[in-house]
Amino acid sequence: MEDKKPLILVSNDDGITAPGIRALVEAMSEFGEVVVVAPDSPQSGMGHAITISEPLRMDHTDYFGPHIRAYQCSGTPADCVKLALDKVLDRRPDLLVSGINHGSNSSINVIYSGTMSAAVEGAIDGLQAIGFSLLDYSMDADFTAAKYVVRHVVGKVLEHKLPPETLLNVNIPKTSKEDLKGIKVCRQARAKWVEEFDERTDPYQRKYYWLTGKFVDLDHGQDTDEWALKNGYASVVPVQFDLTAHHAIGILNNWELNEEN
Amino acid sequence: MEDKKPLILVSNDDGITAPGIRALVEAMSEFGEVVVVAPDSPQSGMGHAITISEPLRMDHTDYFGPHIRAYQCSGTPADCVKLALDKVLDRRPDLLVSGINHGSNSSINVIYSGTMSAAVEGAIDGLQAIGFSLLDYSMDADFTAAKYVVRHVVGKVLEHKLPPETLLNVNIPKTSKEDLKGIKVCRQARAKWVEEFDERTDPYQRKYYWLTGKFVDLDHGQDTDEWALKNGYASVVPVQFDLTAHHAIGILNNWELNEEN
Repeated sequence: MEDKKPLILVSNDDGITAPGIRALVEAMSEFGEVVVVAPDSPQSGMGHAITISEPLRMDHTDYFGPHIRAYQCSGTPADCVKLALDKVLDRRPDLLVSGINHGSNSSINVIYSGTMSAAVEGAIDGLQAIGFSLLDYSMDADFTAAKYVVRHVVGKVLEHKLPPETLLNVNIPKTSKEDLKGIKVCRQARAKWVEEFDERTDPYQRKYYWLTGKFVDLDHGQDTDEWALKNGYASVVPVQFDLTAHHAIGILNNWELNEEN
Repeated sequence: MEDKKPLILVSNDDGITAPGIRALVEAMSEFGEVVVVAPDSPQSGMGHAITISEPLRMDHTDYFGPHIRAYQCSGTPADCVKLALDKVLDRRPDLLVSGINHGSNSSINVIYSGTMSAAVEGAIDGLQAIGFSLLDYSMDADFTAAKYVVRHVVGKVLEHKLPPETLLNVNIPKTSKEDLKGIKVCRQARAKWVEEFDERTDPYQRKYYWLTGKFVDLDHGQDTDEWALKNGYASVVPVQFDLTAHHAIGILNNWELNEEN
């Protein structure tokens, strides 16, 4: 049997021209054949949205040079992965990576994350999948430490394979490679955003609202992603898409919630 | 101390004019004071999207008559809940209900569901929260059986209170109240969508794609929401927003994924 190079699908939510996806494509090219299907415009905060009310467009682009097959798509990150699997790739990818996101997707941010929704979409389909995020919103962010973490984590995933129905949420602190303390497997911290909408009045005297908020870490554990990131480590959280609160089933059964007619 | 009527916040993802939210408002009015904050247009498939790239609009509407405070909002279901908590309500609601969705949010559909994202948003903020969905996409759907299930589940939740950081995903089969077999506490079935994009060519010879797909139930258990719904029961799945695959942490620790620099 021929020893085929791994096929690696790359997507993101900041859009195909974001520096983060370029850094990820560069790091992935060392591991195998890279194909990119990414949004043609920024999609941050899109959660796990899919596009059902309008058709999708997808166009080939040579944005990453002649050796990388790349497509920009009018849809969400989840749409991109669906399109890639159905219309672009002629074999199953060995790995799906999403990012590198400009900004954190740690703790509760995983819920709102387009970056992670691309990875979740792949994992639902049975792929090895990882989302990467750097805690730096700047378009001039330095991805040196992030690329180091990407190489380390991708190497381990290709070597060992993830447990079934599990993907990884990897966040990297804003730090130089020299100051990075290490890499830690963590759980998702308990945290939330407290909203503070910024209420304004438009020139026509109508009110409008900008969503802003304050992040509140509710967790005192030292095994969380927030703890790791605050202490200079990259965090690796295994993520699942079975949302059942299994421990609550017994409690609900005691409520006489069940009925037989 | 005065015995205050429960304050109930209602939202959805099909938009404020959908028959499903009207049925939910009617059922909730029997339990307490109802306030509605819902999207001004359909938002299905929006997952847990939030709006950060543009401002939000919110307008009062008397759509539900003079006794129900109601607002239509330009954002997603999650935006609606955030706005309601920060800008509309002057006390914490005793319950948040979302729906009744026109179409299933069982099994893996929970991931793509705007209906459930409204409920999740409330639960993250510590509210009692329930999403309701009827397995009937029609705008002429009969909500009689659904309203019966809503009343039963809401009564139990107000009586017992949900376990911390848990909400409910309730799905109701398309059936008459007489033929409804009962109500069952379940786990989320293992399932996925297999994409089949419908590729077309526009009048200008450019390709476009409609997202379609085939639902595949991968689960043979009789304790799942899919089993319950197929067998004529309403399903009640307790849902959590800690996405950590806790069982995988030990496995990853054995990979030497952790590093100390």
